[in-house]
Amino acid sequence: MHNKYLFTNIIGTFIFNEHFNLLDKKLFKNIEQYTNKEEIEKEFSKKYTNLKKPEGKELKKILLSFKNEQFFNDFYKNNLKITKAAIKESVKDDLLIMQTINNIGDIDKTLNILIKRLREWYALYNPEFENALENQEKFVELILKKDKKDLLKEIKINEKDSMGANLSKEALEPIMNLGKEIYQLFQLREKQELYLNKLMKKICPNLLAIAGDKIGAKLLEQAGSLKNLMLFPASTIQLLGAEKALFRHMKTGARSPKYGFLHEHPLIAKNPRQLHGKIARTLADKICIAVKVDYFKGKFIGDKLLKEIEAKFK
Amino acid sequence: MHNKYLFTNIIGTFIFNEHFNLLDKKLFKNIEQYTNKEEIEKEFSKKYTNLKKPEGKELKKILLSFKNEQFFNDFYKNNLKITKAAIKESVKDDLLIMQTINNIGDIDKTLNILIKRLREWYALYNPEFENALENQEKFVELILKKDKKDLLKEIKINEKDSMGANLSKEALEPIMNLGKEIYQLFQLREKQELYLNKLMKKICPNLLAIAGDKIGAKLLEQAGSLKNLMLFPASTIQLLGAEKALFRHMKTGARSPKYGFLHEHPLIAKNPRQLHGKIARTLADKICIAVKVDYFKGKFIGDKLLKEIEAKFK
Repeated sequence: MHNKYLFTNIIGTFIFNEHFNLLDKKLFKNIEQYTNKEEIEKEFSKKYTNLKKPEGKELKKILLSFKNEQFFNDFYKNNLKITKAAIKESVKDDLLIMQTINNIGDIDKTLNILIKRLREWYALYNPEFENALENQEKFVELILKKDKKDLLKEIKINEKDSMGANLSKEALEPIMNLGKEIYQLFQLREKQELYLNKLMKKICPNLLAIAGDKIGAKLLEQAGSLKNLMLFPASTIQLLGAEKALFRHMKTGARSPKYGFLHEHPLIAKNPRQLHGKIARTLADKICIAVKVDYFKGKFIGDKLLKEIEAKFK
Repeated sequence: MHNKYLFTNIIGTFIFNEHFNLLDKKLFKNIEQYTNKEEIEKEFSKKYTNLKKPEGKELKKILLSFKNEQFFNDFYKNNLKITKAAIKESVKDDLLIMQTINNIGDIDKTLNILIKRLREWYALYNPEFENALENQEKFVELILKKDKKDLLKEIKINEKDSMGANLSKEALEPIMNLGKEIYQLFQLREKQELYLNKLMKKICPNLLAIAGDKIGAKLLEQAGSLKNLMLFPASTIQLLGAEKALFRHMKTGARSPKYGFLHEHPLIAKNPRQLHGKIARTLADKICIAVKVDYFKGKFIGDKLLKEIEAKFK
């Protein structure tokens, strides 16, 4: 018996005879058929005997027969469909984490811009209170809730002694509107933070347990994906976020950085300066393990890892 | 008869005899008495004859008697009160105009940051529609109002063919929350613009009529106050907002700028390029007049001035 050849590409599965003429074919009508191509190949295997996959010169000859224009349209359409499906599939939860942490950064930037304006504007009306309260969120909340007299009473100043202008209701309204907007932005920030935490609990609980949501998400964002982060060695993780200092070190011989995003970790803030480098190294080690467990959907060991670090630096 | 001296400073009005000993005094108890010091001086003039204001050496001797510590506290307190009152008084409507136009600029900056994020995030879900609509405000409005299917229908794409990921309700929520916030910011911007227009109608209607609210407010902002702007020659007004190009011209001999903020004026956009410099000069001339009329609270001639310019460049 002569050989027959079974060949599959993105438009279908084909059977060729020993002279490389087409004997039989099944074109894929949709993406599902393409993804389940093994089943179609199995069916053909039952129908024909002596089937083999083409190799070397055989493959070359078979590929030549697809230069026929009749297939061009199918190639184009199916290629497009498959690419679209791949793009669709590529949106994973770690992309959402990155958008969320970036959005939180954006909101912080906008809050800075708008609060600076609010304070400058409001200070025309009530400079004493503006000066007395540093906390931004509280400042916005209080000026929305209370009037000038009560606010001044809180810092023990008589309204008569205020240097602020007596603004009309009409002149105060745009200031208060700006304040309300800023208040809304603070609330949006809180919501996005909650969402970030929820997402991370779902896809990288171990990373979350050790690094916290902010640092964890920043590490992810810098790496580009959970998979990339999983492939990084601990030494890279330790320095993520310190790229500028690292390149300065390499270029000018300045001191090498000890940590990047990890700098904000509570364990580092709590401990004396001379331990910072050591802690950052340990944290990076454990994060390196945690991310691998997360990527391969292992068990939750984040609390155990964190306790090990904490025990080391008591 | 011997001379007596009448002397007033910030703590009170005093009468000295020819030997420069204090005969009589009236200390100011509040700022109102200080501002109405002429009345108190008049009362003294009725009570004493031969009163004169000290000059030269006489003034020196009188001033010496205020070196007495008993006055220090009064000087300190009254000085503080007067300064506070002056600060309070200094808040004029042109300051509010500047805060408002700056705030509109701030809002634009924040909108840019947040919309960029919204588009990137939303494009994971519906890239085709994100790509199809350039108008930012409409984009935000539409994605809040309609769902993916309807939006895709508008650009004639079947939902099945979309490359966007099928995001869960939970994953869509933070995107929509960001969208709502942006929508609010657009509305705040609109409100601040209305307020700006209202303010300008009140304090510089002539400037408003010729330059419009945006350009007018920017001119005011750059000048620092309506008074400053009133003092500027037309040539300065023409180049306000083009400081960078002007200094480059002076330093390197590059071409001199023809206009600054006036560049955005509709008359300039409407007319051919070779007229731009001429129009800017005429506009600056008329603005120069308009601002003077505004500052001295003259009649409304803005419409007449604008018509003169328009007639010139028909």
